[in-house]
Amino acid sequence: MKMTNVMLALAAGVCLAGAAETIALPKPTVDSGVTVLQALKDRHSCRSFSEQEISLETLSGVLWAANGYNRPDKRTNATGLNKQTIEIYACMKTGAYRYDAKANALVKVCDADLRNAVADHQPYAAKAPVSLLIVADVSDPVYSKKWNTLTHYDAGIVSGNIYIYCAANGLATVCRGSMDRDALRKALKLPETKVLHLNHPIGRPASK
Amino acid sequence: MKMTNVMLALAAGVCLAGAAETIALPKPTVDSGVTVLQALKDRHSCRSFSEQEISLETLSGVLWAANGYNRPDKRTNATGLNKQTIEIYACMKTGAYRYDAKANALVKVCDADLRNAVADHQPYAAKAPVSLLIVADVSDPVYSKKWNTLTHYDAGIVSGNIYIYCAANGLATVCRGSMDRDALRKALKLPETKVLHLNHPIGRPASK
Repeated sequence: MKMTNVMLALAAGVCLAGAAETIALPKPTVDSGVTVLQALKDRHSCRSFSEQEISLETLSGVLWAANGYNRPDKRTNATGLNKQTIEIYACMKTGAYRYDAKANALVKVCDADLRNAVADHQPYAAKAPVSLLIVADVSDPVYSKKWNTLTHYDAGIVSGNIYIYCAANGLATVCRGSMDRDALRKALKLPETKVLHLNHPIGRPASK
Repeated sequence: MKMTNVMLALAAGVCLAGAAETIALPKPTVDSGVTVLQALKDRHSCRSFSEQEISLETLSGVLWAANGYNRPDKRTNATGLNKQTIEIYACMKTGAYRYDAKANALVKVCDADLRNAVADHQPYAAKAPVSLLIVADVSDPVYSKKWNTLTHYDAGIVSGNIYIYCAANGLATVCRGSMDRDALRKALKLPETKVLHLNHPIGRPASK
Protein backbone atom coordinates (compact mmCIF):
# COMPACT_ATOMS: atom_id res chain seq x y z
CA MET A 1 0.00 0.00 0.00
CA LYS A 2 1.45 3.27 -1.09
CA MET A 3 0.71 5.21 2.09
CA THR A 4 2.47 2.62 4.19
CA ASN A 5 5.59 2.88 2.11
CA VAL A 6 5.55 6.62 2.45
CA MET A 7 5.16 6.34 6.21
CA LEU A 8 7.95 3.79 6.44
CA ALA A 9 10.19 5.96 4.34
CA LEU A 10 9.45 8.95 6.57
CA ALA A 11 10.11 6.97 9.71
CA ALA A 12 13.47 5.93 8.31
CA GLY A 13 14.32 9.51 7.45
CA VAL A 14 14.65 8.65 3.79
CA CYS A 15 13.74 11.42 1.43
CA LEU A 16 11.01 10.96 -1.07
CA ALA A 17 11.10 11.69 -4.71
CA GLY A 18 8.56 14.32 -5.61
CA ALA A 19 8.82 16.09 -2.26
CA ALA A 20 9.84 19.31 -3.96
CA GLU A 21 8.06 22.30 -2.55
CA THR A 22 9.34 25.83 -2.48
CA ILE A 23 8.55 28.37 0.19
CA ALA A 24 9.03 31.95 -0.99
CA LEU A 25 10.53 33.97 1.85
CA PRO A 26 9.55 37.54 2.71
CA LYS A 27 12.27 40.12 2.05
CA PRO A 28 14.65 40.23 5.01
CA THR A 29 14.08 43.90 5.70
CA VAL A 30 12.65 43.90 9.23
CA ASP A 31 15.00 45.96 11.36
CA SER A 32 14.75 45.34 15.10
CA GLY A 33 16.55 48.63 15.64
CA VAL A 34 19.13 46.97 17.88
CA THR A 35 22.63 48.31 17.35
CA VAL A 36 25.70 46.18 16.76
CA LEU A 37 27.15 47.26 20.11
CA GLN A 38 24.00 46.21 21.94
CA ALA A 39 23.78 42.90 20.08
CA LEU A 40 27.38 42.08 20.98
CA LYS A 41 26.60 42.88 24.62
CA ASP A 42 23.65 40.48 24.47
CA ARG A 43 25.32 37.74 22.44
CA HIS A 44 25.18 34.44 24.27
CA SER A 45 24.57 30.74 23.76
CA CYS A 46 21.12 29.59 24.86
CA ARG A 47 20.16 25.93 25.23
CA SER A 48 16.63 26.43 26.52
CA PHE A 49 14.12 26.78 23.70
CA SER A 50 10.38 27.36 23.55
CA GLU A 51 8.61 25.11 21.04
CA GLN A 52 6.83 28.19 19.68
CA GLU A 53 7.21 28.52 15.94
CA ILE A 54 9.08 31.49 14.51
CA SER A 55 7.58 33.47 11.66
CA LEU A 56 8.78 33.22 8.07
CA GLU A 57 9.82 36.89 8.33
CA THR A 58 12.08 36.03 11.24
CA LEU A 59 13.48 32.94 9.56
CA SER A 60 14.11 34.92 6.39
CA GLY A 61 16.14 37.44 8.39
CA VAL A 62 18.24 34.77 10.08
CA LEU A 63 18.98 33.03 6.78
CA TRP A 64 19.93 36.28 5.08
CA ALA A 65 22.19 37.25 7.99
CA ALA A 66 23.80 33.81 7.79
CA ASN A 67 24.41 33.55 4.08
CA GLY A 68 22.25 35.96 2.10
CA TYR A 69 23.17 38.37 -0.65
CA ASN A 70 23.88 41.95 0.42
CA ARG A 71 25.19 42.81 -3.07
CA PRO A 72 24.23 41.36 -6.45
CA ASP A 73 27.03 38.79 -6.34
CA LYS A 74 28.32 38.87 -2.77
CA ARG A 75 27.14 37.85 0.63
CA THR A 76 26.61 38.98 4.21
CA ASN A 77 29.28 36.42 5.14
CA ALA A 78 32.87 36.40 3.95
CA THR A 79 34.35 33.17 2.56
CA GLY A 80 37.97 32.26 1.88
CA LEU A 81 38.96 33.23 -1.67
CA ASN A 82 35.36 34.44 -2.06
CA LYS A 83 34.39 30.89 -3.01
CA GLN A 84 30.93 31.30 -1.44
CA THR A 85 31.11 27.72 -0.27
CA ILE A 86 28.35 27.80 2.31
CA GLU A 87 24.88 26.30 1.99
CA ILE A 88 22.30 26.47 4.74
CA TYR A 89 19.66 23.82 5.37
CA ALA A 90 16.69 24.52 7.62
CA CYS A 91 15.29 21.48 9.44
CA MET A 92 11.73 21.94 10.65
CA LYS A 93 8.70 19.89 11.61
CA THR A 94 7.45 20.02 8.02
CA GLY A 95 10.70 18.82 6.49
CA ALA A 96 14.18 19.93 5.58
CA TYR A 97 14.81 22.78 3.16
CA ARG A 98 17.81 24.20 1.34
CA TYR A 99 18.08 27.98 1.53
CA ASP A 100 18.21 29.34 -2.01
CA ALA A 101 19.73 32.73 -1.24
CA LYS A 102 19.43 34.02 -4.80
CA ALA A 103 15.72 33.28 -4.99
CA ASN A 104 15.18 34.09 -1.29
CA ALA A 105 13.33 30.82 -0.92
CA LEU A 106 13.40 27.53 0.92
CA VAL A 107 13.46 24.50 -1.35
CA LYS A 108 12.25 21.29 0.23
CA VAL A 109 14.75 18.44 0.01
CA CYS A 110 13.23 16.03 2.50
CA ASP A 111 9.76 15.49 3.98
CA ALA A 112 11.02 14.16 7.29
CA ASP A 113 11.51 16.14 10.46
CA LEU A 114 15.29 15.83 10.91
CA ARG A 115 15.58 17.87 14.09
CA ASN A 116 16.27 14.78 16.18
CA ALA A 117 19.12 13.80 13.88
CA VAL A 118 20.52 17.31 14.28
CA ALA A 119 20.04 17.24 18.05
CA ASP A 120 21.92 13.92 18.30
CA HIS A 121 20.46 12.85 21.67
CA GLN A 122 20.40 16.34 23.14
CA PRO A 123 16.66 16.90 23.74
CA TYR A 124 17.02 20.65 24.25
CA ALA A 125 18.28 21.02 20.70
CA ALA A 126 15.33 19.12 19.20
CA LYS A 127 12.82 21.45 20.85
CA ALA A 128 13.76 24.50 18.80
CA PRO A 129 11.34 24.96 15.87
CA VAL A 130 14.18 25.32 13.37
CA SER A 131 17.67 23.89 13.24
CA LEU A 132 20.01 25.37 10.69
CA LEU A 133 22.79 23.28 9.20
CA ILE A 134 25.92 25.03 8.00
CA VAL A 135 27.25 22.98 5.09
CA ALA A 136 30.24 23.72 2.88
CA ASP A 137 30.76 22.69 -0.70
CA VAL A 138 34.36 21.54 -1.02
CA SER A 139 34.12 20.23 -4.57
CA ASP A 140 36.58 22.89 -5.83
CA PRO A 141 40.00 21.20 -6.14
CA VAL A 142 41.55 24.06 -4.16
CA TYR A 143 40.24 22.39 -0.99
CA SER A 144 41.90 19.07 -1.60
CA LYS A 145 45.09 19.44 0.39
CA LYS A 146 46.61 22.72 1.46
CA TRP A 147 43.26 24.41 1.98
CA ASN A 148 41.31 21.52 3.37
CA THR A 149 40.37 23.42 6.52
CA LEU A 150 39.53 26.70 4.83
CA THR A 151 35.79 26.14 4.87
CA HIS A 152 35.89 25.66 8.64
CA TYR A 153 36.58 29.37 8.87
CA ASP A 154 33.76 30.05 6.41
CA ALA A 155 31.39 28.09 8.65
CA GLY A 156 32.55 29.93 11.75
CA ILE A 157 31.91 33.31 10.16
CA VAL A 158 28.35 32.23 9.35
CA SER A 159 27.88 31.11 12.93
CA GLY A 160 29.05 34.52 14.16
CA ASN A 161 26.52 36.24 11.90
CA ILE A 162 23.71 33.99 13.16
CA TYR A 163 24.58 34.70 16.79
CA ILE A 164 24.58 38.46 16.32
CA TYR A 165 21.36 38.48 14.32
CA CYS A 166 19.66 36.33 16.96
CA ALA A 167 20.93 38.60 19.74
CA ALA A 168 19.44 41.59 17.93
CA ASN A 169 16.09 39.88 17.42
CA GLY A 170 15.29 38.18 20.72
CA LEU A 171 16.06 34.73 19.37
CA ALA A 172 17.74 31.90 21.24
CA THR A 173 20.51 29.96 19.55
CA VAL A 174 23.64 27.97 20.17
CA CYS A 175 26.38 26.80 17.84
CA ARG A 176 26.79 23.02 17.92
CA GLY A 177 29.26 20.64 16.37
CA SER A 178 27.44 17.45 17.35
CA MET A 179 24.88 15.96 14.99
CA ASP A 180 24.13 12.60 13.43
CA ARG A 181 26.09 13.34 10.29
CA ASP A 182 25.48 9.95 8.68
CA ALA A 183 21.71 10.21 9.05
CA LEU A 184 21.66 13.80 7.83
CA ARG A 185 23.91 13.10 4.87
CA LYS A 186 21.65 10.26 3.82
CA ALA A 187 18.40 12.13 4.35
CA LEU A 188 19.59 15.26 2.57
CA LYS A 189 21.36 13.24 -0.14
CA LEU A 190 24.59 15.15 0.43
CA PRO A 191 27.56 13.93 -1.62
CA GLU A 192 30.98 13.54 -0.02
CA THR A 193 31.94 16.96 -1.34
CA LYS A 194 29.54 18.63 1.09
CA VAL A 195 30.83 19.00 4.63
CA LEU A 196 28.37 19.19 7.51
CA HIS A 197 30.20 21.67 9.70
CA LEU A 198 27.96 23.15 12.37
CA ASN A 199 24.33 23.49 13.38
CA HIS A 200 22.30 26.20 15.06
CA PRO A 201 18.93 25.46 16.69
CA ILE A 202 16.89 28.67 16.47
CA GLY A 203 13.80 29.63 18.40
CA ARG A 204 12.40 31.81 21.13
CA PRO A 205 14.02 31.35 24.53
CA ALA A 206 11.96 29.22 26.96
CA SER A 207 10.15 31.32 29.54
CA LYS A 208 11.88 31.26 32.87
CA MET B 1 77.32 49.23 20.89
CA LYS B 2 74.01 48.60 22.54
CA MET B 3 71.89 50.69 20.18
CA THR B 4 73.21 48.82 17.18
CA ASN B 5 72.19 45.52 18.70
CA VAL B 6 68.72 46.82 19.37
CA MET B 7 68.43 48.05 15.80
CA LEU B 8 69.67 44.76 14.42
CA ALA B 9 67.23 42.89 16.61
CA LEU B 10 64.38 45.09 15.41
CA ALA B 11 65.37 44.63 11.81
CA ALA B 12 65.29 40.88 12.30
CA GLY B 13 61.89 41.05 13.93
CA VAL B 14 63.26 39.54 17.11
CA CYS B 15 61.55 40.65 20.27
CA LEU B 16 63.50 42.35 22.97
CA ALA B 17 63.54 41.51 26.61
CA GLY B 18 62.22 44.40 28.65
CA ALA B 19 59.85 45.58 25.94
CA ALA B 20 56.91 45.23 28.29
CA GLU B 21 54.55 48.16 28.09
CA THR B 22 50.87 48.14 28.76
CA ILE B 23 48.34 50.38 27.06
CA ALA B 24 45.14 50.76 29.05
CA LEU B 25 42.20 50.80 26.64
CA PRO B 26 39.16 53.05 26.96
CA LYS B 27 35.95 51.20 27.78
CA PRO B 28 34.40 49.85 24.56
CA THR B 29 31.14 51.73 25.00
CA VAL B 30 31.03 54.00 21.96
CA ASP B 31 27.88 53.07 20.06
CA SER B 32 27.83 54.12 16.42
CA GLY B 33 24.06 53.68 16.44
CA VAL B 34 24.21 51.41 13.40
CA THR B 35 21.79 48.50 13.60
CA VAL B 36 22.70 44.87 13.01
CA LEU B 37 20.55 44.80 9.88
CA GLN B 38 22.33 47.84 8.44
CA ALA B 39 25.77 46.49 9.36
CA LEU B 40 25.01 43.21 7.60
CA LYS B 41 23.89 45.15 4.54
CA ASP B 42 27.19 47.04 4.58
CA ARG B 43 29.45 44.09 5.45
CA HIS B 44 32.16 43.68 2.84
CA SER B 45 35.85 42.94 2.44
CA CYS B 46 37.97 46.01 1.75
CA ARG B 47 41.59 45.83 0.58
CA SER B 48 42.19 49.55 0.17
CA PHE B 49 43.34 51.18 3.39
CA SER B 50 44.22 54.72 4.38
CA GLU B 51 47.39 54.95 6.47
CA GLN B 52 45.51 57.18 8.91
CA GLU B 53 45.77 55.92 12.49
CA ILE B 54 42.64 54.77 14.28
CA SER B 55 41.93 55.98 17.79
CA LEU B 56 42.39 53.84 20.88
CA GLU B 57 38.62 54.12 21.44
CA THR B 58 38.01 52.58 18.04
CA LEU B 59 40.61 49.87 18.52
CA SER B 60 39.17 49.06 21.92
CA GLY B 61 35.76 48.56 20.35
CA VAL B 62 37.09 46.27 17.63
CA LEU B 63 39.01 44.15 20.13
CA TRP B 64 36.03 43.86 22.45
CA ALA B 65 33.77 42.89 19.55
CA ALA B 66 36.32 40.29 18.49
CA ASN B 67 37.03 38.62 21.81
CA GLY B 68 36.03 40.82 24.75
CA TYR B 69 33.99 40.00 27.82
CA ASN B 70 30.28 40.78 27.66
CA ARG B 71 29.66 38.91 30.93
CA PRO B 72 31.99 38.41 33.91
CA ASP B 73 33.25 35.07 32.58
CA LYS B 74 32.01 34.90 28.99
CA ARG B 75 32.75 36.58 25.73
CA THR B 76 31.26 38.38 22.76
CA ASN B 77 32.42 35.40 20.67
CA ALA B 78 31.33 31.79 21.12
CA THR B 79 33.98 29.06 21.27
CA GLY B 80 33.59 25.30 20.98
CA LEU B 81 33.01 23.73 24.41
CA ASN B 82 33.31 27.29 25.79
CA LYS B 83 37.07 26.80 25.91
CA GLN B 84 37.69 30.50 25.18
CA THR B 85 40.66 29.53 23.09
CA ILE B 86 41.14 32.76 21.18
CA GLU B 87 43.83 35.35 21.74
CA ILE B 88 44.12 38.51 19.67
CA TYR B 89 47.39 40.24 18.85
CA ALA B 90 47.46 43.77 17.49
CA CYS B 91 50.39 44.57 15.20
CA MET B 92 51.07 48.29 14.84
CA LYS B 93 53.87 50.69 13.95
CA THR B 94 54.89 50.87 17.62
CA GLY B 95 55.05 47.11 18.13
CA ALA B 96 52.93 44.05 18.63
CA TYR B 97 50.56 43.72 21.57
CA ARG B 98 48.49 40.95 23.10
CA TYR B 99 44.93 41.96 23.90
CA ASP B 100 44.30 41.31 27.59
CA ALA B 101 40.51 41.19 27.50
CA LYS B 102 40.10 40.91 31.27
CA ALA B 103 42.19 44.00 31.94
CA ASN B 104 40.97 45.75 28.77
CA ALA B 105 44.56 46.52 27.87
CA LEU B 106 47.19 45.90 25.24
CA VAL B 107 50.35 44.28 26.55
CA LYS B 108 53.40 44.78 24.40
CA VAL B 109 55.09 41.57 23.38
CA CYS B 110 57.41 42.86 20.66
CA ASP B 111 58.90 46.24 19.77
CA ALA B 112 59.04 45.56 16.06
CA ASP B 113 56.45 46.60 13.50
CA LEU B 114 55.25 43.20 12.29
CA ARG B 115 52.70 44.43 9.77
CA ASN B 116 54.87 43.40 6.84
CA ALA B 117 55.11 39.86 8.21
CA VAL B 118 51.32 39.81 8.52
CA ALA B 119 50.88 41.26 5.03
CA ASP B 120 53.14 38.57 3.54
CA HIS B 121 54.03 40.47 0.35
CA GLN B 122 50.59 42.02 -0.10
CA PRO B 123 51.38 45.76 0.19
CA TYR B 124 47.74 46.75 0.66
CA ALA B 125 47.58 44.76 3.89
CA ALA B 126 50.69 46.43 5.34
CA LYS B 127 49.19 49.90 4.86
CA ALA B 128 46.47 49.46 7.46
CA PRO B 129 47.49 51.02 10.80
CA VAL B 130 46.57 47.87 12.74
CA SER B 131 46.61 44.21 11.82
CA LEU B 132 44.87 41.85 14.19
CA LEU B 133 46.03 38.26 14.49
CA ILE B 134 43.49 35.65 15.52
CA VAL B 135 45.40 33.00 17.45
CA ALA B 136 44.03 29.91 19.19
CA ASP B 137 45.45 28.14 22.19
CA VAL B 138 45.23 24.41 21.51
CA SER B 139 47.16 23.25 24.56
CA ASP B 140 44.08 21.52 25.98
CA PRO B 141 44.41 17.78 25.18
CA VAL B 142 40.86 17.79 23.79
CA TYR B 143 42.27 19.35 20.59
CA SER B 144 44.80 16.62 19.96
CA LYS B 145 42.88 14.35 17.59
CA LYS B 146 39.12 14.31 17.18
CA TRP B 147 38.72 18.02 17.77
CA ASN B 148 41.83 19.28 16.05
CA THR B 149 39.87 21.58 13.76
CA LEU B 150 37.50 22.93 16.41
CA THR B 151 39.40 26.16 16.91
CA HIS B 152 39.10 26.94 13.21
CA TYR B 153 35.41 27.55 13.87
CA ASP B 154 36.30 29.67 16.90
CA ALA B 155 38.56 31.80 14.71
CA GLY B 156 35.87 32.17 12.05
CA ILE B 157 33.33 33.39 14.60
CA VAL B 158 35.79 36.07 15.74
CA SER B 159 36.31 37.12 12.13
CA GLY B 160 32.54 37.45 11.69
CA ASN B 161 32.34 39.70 14.75
CA ILE B 162 35.19 41.88 13.49
CA TYR B 163 33.55 42.28 10.09
CA ILE B 164 30.22 43.35 11.55
CA TYR B 165 31.77 45.74 14.05
CA CYS B 166 33.85 47.32 11.29
CA ALA B 167 30.81 47.63 9.04
CA ALA B 168 28.99 49.44 11.84
CA ASN B 169 31.87 51.82 12.49
CA GLY B 170 33.09 52.89 9.06
CA LEU B 171 36.21 50.74 9.25
CA ALA B 172 37.80 48.83 6.41
CA THR B 173 38.85 45.24 6.97
CA VAL B 174 39.38 41.92 5.24
CA CYS B 175 39.86 38.45 6.61
CA ARG B 176 43.13 36.91 5.44
CA GLY B 177 44.68 33.48 5.82
CA SER B 178 48.06 34.40 4.34
CA MET B 179 50.81 35.63 6.64
CA ASP B 180 54.43 34.81 7.36
CA ARG B 181 53.62 32.41 10.16
CA ASP B 182 57.23 31.46 10.88
CA ALA B 183 58.32 35.08 11.31
CA LEU B 184 55.30 35.93 13.43
CA ARG B 185 55.67 32.85 15.62
CA LYS B 186 59.28 33.72 16.27
CA ALA B 187 58.70 37.41 16.89
CA LEU B 188 55.73 36.83 19.20
CA LYS B 189 57.42 33.86 20.89
CA LEU B 190 54.38 31.68 20.25
CA PRO B 191 54.77 28.05 21.29
CA GLU B 192 53.56 25.23 19.03
CA THR B 193 50.34 25.09 21.03
CA LYS B 194 49.26 28.46 19.63
CA VAL B 195 47.78 28.35 16.14
CA LEU B 196 47.99 31.44 13.92
CA HIS B 197 44.63 31.15 12.20
CA LEU B 198 43.64 34.38 10.48
CA ASN B 199 44.48 38.06 10.32
CA HIS B 200 42.45 41.23 9.84
CA PRO B 201 44.07 44.49 8.74
CA ILE B 202 41.94 47.29 10.21
CA GLY B 203 41.84 50.94 9.23
CA ARG B 204 39.89 53.62 7.49
CA PRO B 205 39.08 52.95 3.85
CA ALA B 206 41.31 54.79 1.37
CA SER B 207 39.63 57.80 -0.17
CA LYS B 208 38.42 57.12 -3.67
